[in-house]
Amino acid sequence: MDYYSKQISKLIEEFSGLPGIGAKSAQRLAFHILNMPTEQVEALSNAILEAKRNVKYCKCCFTLTDEDVCPICKDSTRNQKVIMVVENTRDLAAYEKTGKFEGVYHVLHGAISPMLGIGPNDIKLKELMIRLEADVDEVIIATNSSLEGETTAMYISKLIKPTGIKVTRIASGVPVGGDLEYIDEVTLLRALEGRTQL
Amino acid sequence: MDYYSKQISKLIEEFSGLPGIGAKSAQRLAFHILNMPTEQVEALSNAILEAKRNVKYCKCCFTLTDEDVCPICKDSTRNQKVIMVVENTRDLAAYEKTGKFEGVYHVLHGAISPMLGIGPNDIKLKELMIRLEADVDEVIIATNSSLEGETTAMYISKLIKPTGIKVTRIASGVPVGGDLEYIDEVTLLRALEGRTQL
Repeated sequence: MDYYSKQISKLIEEFSGLPGIGAKSAQRLAFHILNMPTEQVEALSNAILEAKRNVKYCKCCFTLTDEDVCPICKDSTRNQKVIMVVENTRDLAAYEKTGKFEGVYHVLHGAISPMLGIGPNDIKLKELMIRLEADVDEVIIATNSSLEGETTAMYISKLIKPTGIKVTRIASGVPVGGDLEYIDEVTLLRALEGRTQL
Repeated sequence: MDYYSKQISKLIEEFSGLPGIGAKSAQRLAFHILNMPTEQVEALSNAILEAKRNVKYCKCCFTLTDEDVCPICKDSTRNQKVIMVVENTRDLAAYEKTGKFEGVYHVLHGAISPMLGIGPNDIKLKELMIRLEADVDEVIIATNSSLEGETTAMYISKLIKPTGIKVTRIASGVPVGGDLEYIDEVTLLRALEGRTQL
């Protein structure tokens, strides 16, 4: 891209490398930044560096946090004996937004995927098993309802069952507000299997 | 957003402020950055700062560049007597990509828009008129084919005509490869008006 100055080309290139940002969006972002007030540009640049520098895994649940132990694991009002296992921090955030889950989490940072070569040792599973040596009442498996998520759920439940700890899986079915007409067959069958008595 | 650490929330917030990036994309970008190698994060953060710090207007054509005078204005093989007027640096880049324009540019940084309160003094028009005091053969107006672009084109042509310099406007019509069926009526009429003899 000779028609732009070196710094602009570099910036466009950097943005193009981010997920979901194509060539056109990268260009638009770059020019937007050139038109932003300097303080705002510095704030953005700093936020990127600071987040990368200070965010680490919680020593207990492995979510991303800027403290040694995350606020949820530290919170004595939460039931530390109920652990919800999720694939990543965004999934944790999704459940936290509901505001209804009183237990704590364990973030796997991935799911078992033979296709992608991700095995049980590539996710935070050993760390979960170590946590289960303490007094735990229930492990709720909230991995995604995808092939990888289901494989991971099966694997974890087999691993935990011998310990005698209760293992549950979040329900899978028609989303609230979902129109049956537009729901795929696998979900429809899953919803039928998981029907509950009224 | 209490369910994320402060730095992650800050980063998501900063990304949300960029054009075309909604809450979900901002979240995805933030987590992508936390997973990127530190050197890459530093490169991104630096590219943002460096572009903002070093990029300025070319003293001659007002495009964005990191030199006092941009490479195009400095290029003695280009015809400095033919000036193409564009709304912004991206439009300049679009014409540069064709590789066929041998003249130079003038970047207005906007278009006249009474709706948005942008008048002739808010764009680099005075600067264009000063350039025309030198020996210029032709001014090609290549503002967008929008209401604002057309208004600006009309305004500029009226301003230049008394100087006796030739003023032209890029053609407007059916895009190459465009299927008439899907082209709006205004464009179809414009294409008809602008028909040329074969």
